[in-house]
Amino acid sequence: MVKNEIRIKQWLKENRARGARLLQILVRENSTRGNESSTQAIIIEKCRQLGLILDIWEIGGNKLKNHPAFCCDRKSFDGNPNLVAVLKGLGGGKSIILNGHIDVVPVGDEMNWKHDPFSGEIECGRLYGRGATDMKGGNVALLMAIESLIANGIKLKGDVIFQSVIEEESGGAGTLAAVLRGYQADGAIIPEPTNMKIFPKQQGSMWFRITVKGRAAHGGTRYEGVSAIEKAVLVIQRLQQLEKDRNAMVSDPLFEKIPIPIPINIGKISSGEWPSSVPDTAILEGRMGVSPEETIQSAQTVMEECLQEMNEQDEWFIKNPVQIEWFGGRWIPGSLDSDHPLINELTRSFIEVKGDNPTIEASPWGTDGGILSSVGNTPTVVFGPGITETAHDANEHIVLEDMFAVSEIIALTLLSWCGTAEASNENK
Amino acid sequence: MVKNEIRIKQWLKENRARGARLLQILVRENSTRGNESSTQAIIIEKCRQLGLILDIWEIGGNKLKNHPAFCCDRKSFDGNPNLVAVLKGLGGGKSIILNGHIDVVPVGDEMNWKHDPFSGEIECGRLYGRGATDMKGGNVALLMAIESLIANGIKLKGDVIFQSVIEEESGGAGTLAAVLRGYQADGAIIPEPTNMKIFPKQQGSMWFRITVKGRAAHGGTRYEGVSAIEKAVLVIQRLQQLEKDRNAMVSDPLFEKIPIPIPINIGKISSGEWPSSVPDTAILEGRMGVSPEETIQSAQTVMEECLQEMNEQDEWFIKNPVQIEWFGGRWIPGSLDSDHPLINELTRSFIEVKGDNPTIEASPWGTDGGILSSVGNTPTVVFGPGITETAHDANEHIVLEDMFAVSEIIALTLLSWCGTAEASNENK
Repeated sequence: MVKNEIRIKQWLKENRARGARLLQILVRENSTRGNESSTQAIIIEKCRQLGLILDIWEIGGNKLKNHPAFCCDRKSFDGNPNLVAVLKGLGGGKSIILNGHIDVVPVGDEMNWKHDPFSGEIECGRLYGRGATDMKGGNVALLMAIESLIANGIKLKGDVIFQSVIEEESGGAGTLAAVLRGYQADGAIIPEPTNMKIFPKQQGSMWFRITVKGRAAHGGTRYEGVSAIEKAVLVIQRLQQLEKDRNAMVSDPLFEKIPIPIPINIGKISSGEWPSSVPDTAILEGRMGVSPEETIQSAQTVMEECLQEMNEQDEWFIKNPVQIEWFGGRWIPGSLDSDHPLINELTRSFIEVKGDNPTIEASPWGTDGGILSSVGNTPTVVFGPGITETAHDANEHIVLEDMFAVSEIIALTLLSWCGTAEASNENK
Repeated sequence: MVKNEIRIKQWLKENRARGARLLQILVRENSTRGNESSTQAIIIEKCRQLGLILDIWEIGGNKLKNHPAFCCDRKSFDGNPNLVAVLKGLGGGKSIILNGHIDVVPVGDEMNWKHDPFSGEIECGRLYGRGATDMKGGNVALLMAIESLIANGIKLKGDVIFQSVIEEESGGAGTLAAVLRGYQADGAIIPEPTNMKIFPKQQGSMWFRITVKGRAAHGGTRYEGVSAIEKAVLVIQRLQQLEKDRNAMVSDPLFEKIPIPIPINIGKISSGEWPSSVPDTAILEGRMGVSPEETIQSAQTVMEECLQEMNEQDEWFIKNPVQIEWFGGRWIPGSLDSDHPLINELTRSFIEVKGDNPTIEASPWGTDGGILSSVGNTPTVVFGPGITETAHDANEHIVLEDMFAVSEIIALTLLSWCGTAEASNENK
């Protein structure tokens, strides 16, 4: 192992407590949509202390809002900035974007949490809280990787472009804004919670809202009405079937171990306003997965045709067609060849740190990787320390050991990807 | 036809426009729960003009709240009084309660209404609006019947106890309060919207809330979670089966023409808070019909056992049992022998006015009749002009012609039931 690598390893080992402490501070700030600023402020101050070149701005403007990949129902971005912080290289090396989102999803039913979701409680090497895994832990891994270079006086040739963005959970307007501001690179890593798997491909996804009509009546003579809830059950069953059919057709070996490569998730249902009335409307909201082999548009068409078929077959739907709209979040799928140099570098670093081959799979969810790769022309890989299963769930947590390992793997990858000034003499 | 009857008939014919106008004024006031006072004020003023003895009071107090039949989640009754208005008889006749509720259910999706739900618009002899059928039209029929007696100087022997109560749509606390205030009688008529059918038996009912647990996860890896919506679909299907089983056992001929004598209506569902999260909780709210042959308690037990069975069979429910609570509305079933004198008198009046036999059936919904009969020991029949099918629905309306016919039938029934001073000389 060369000198730089040994120093990085040593530094990261010695600074674990600081890393855990930083994650704890970040998790203790609630950065749900619209409330990102206080968490972002912590990241900004950290980057300032590291001496990075800061670019802090509130996203918005026509260039962003008129872009075809822009997809956002947020009224205002005021007061909750995006951050890009650059560790300028000496020149002559490959640049890299390290992208993490700062927004987190709502906590759900707090009763299901064993700790306060904003406590950052540490128990048996796991740090608990909303965002611990998705993805403040990933962000800390990035910051520690960068700091390990700086602290050891290591000069890279290529630029390291750290991005702390808003809006990933709602469609990626933050990353899109960074791309449109001109940030591109020779590669990008997004440390989303992959269980330390490497994801060259990312499932795309988008949100839908389905409106099912019924006919109101008194509950005592419910046969005089048509229950929107009962009709919604038919729609749910049809979507379950569509999900089954679509996934049966996925043959990419990267999806082999994923039970449902492109799921259709119904995340919300709301119908009725009175227990003893027959409900006249049901609203379903959900998320449709998009395979890296298809486009957002083609997947939408599949869903629309499926509902259209229902609308033509069911006696009630013929006269009261189910309607679908695509709203809110939309994440473009991403795809990188499995033998891209960035995958190879990352794999090599992984083996060096973990002593074993990484699992290379397709991502089961959309990330900002689709925007970075298709809009920003930046080859992107998703790889991070968080636990996929706990993302968006109660008791979300991260294994701190994994966070430190990913930090080391990324630091080593930066060394080889961006190149070091001494590297030409020392390493070869 | 005897002289009094002819005069009533004539008076009602001449005063149709006034009756329609009164209903219009009542419908134009929104008397949803908590907002009953302005409509009640119109009724009170009407009764005052008729010279009835008024008893106006805000319900509440421990006697009411501790009564086993009390079932109400309303925080306050302040400002929205109950009304009892008595037309005192000369003595020696049978008394009668004429009971109508003033509260209406919410309007639902206003887009489904062709007229403003509080317009009282009249079109082709039908008056439209929330409450037109359920049951302000019935209340107007009662008031016109009483006025037709007074206007013609007819003196009854028995008391006529007109009641305009709150809270029927939420469990009958208004009628219970009137019973506990001491109002009882030899018979009662409730002109709920029966399509002019006579209902000696009334289906009871009560509200339930079922909580179904899931396990949250990110929508992209939804297989890591358990969808509360998918589990709720199983509960819905189980309730559909229970409804089928229970109704297959109903053999009372009064229920013969009712497609679902004791329905289980799921009126509300709510689950999830984020399209791309797997929802961890689903709440179902609904109304369970109770046969006149069973008690509230025994029907509850049937439902609870049914869910218990699910909880023991489904792998997920074994660890995360579905829970049920009984909340809000509860209407005791009511039952009167089909050959009770009140049914006979009403039937005779019906034939006199309509020239045909009435349909005698069981009521497909709970009414305050259960409280009047089982708590108030007052034999009760439900019979009114509204259209069952439009109750609680968009475009609720009443056929004004039916309202006038019911008014006449009730006026004639009052004559014979309560007896008139001259009747002994004149009629026999």
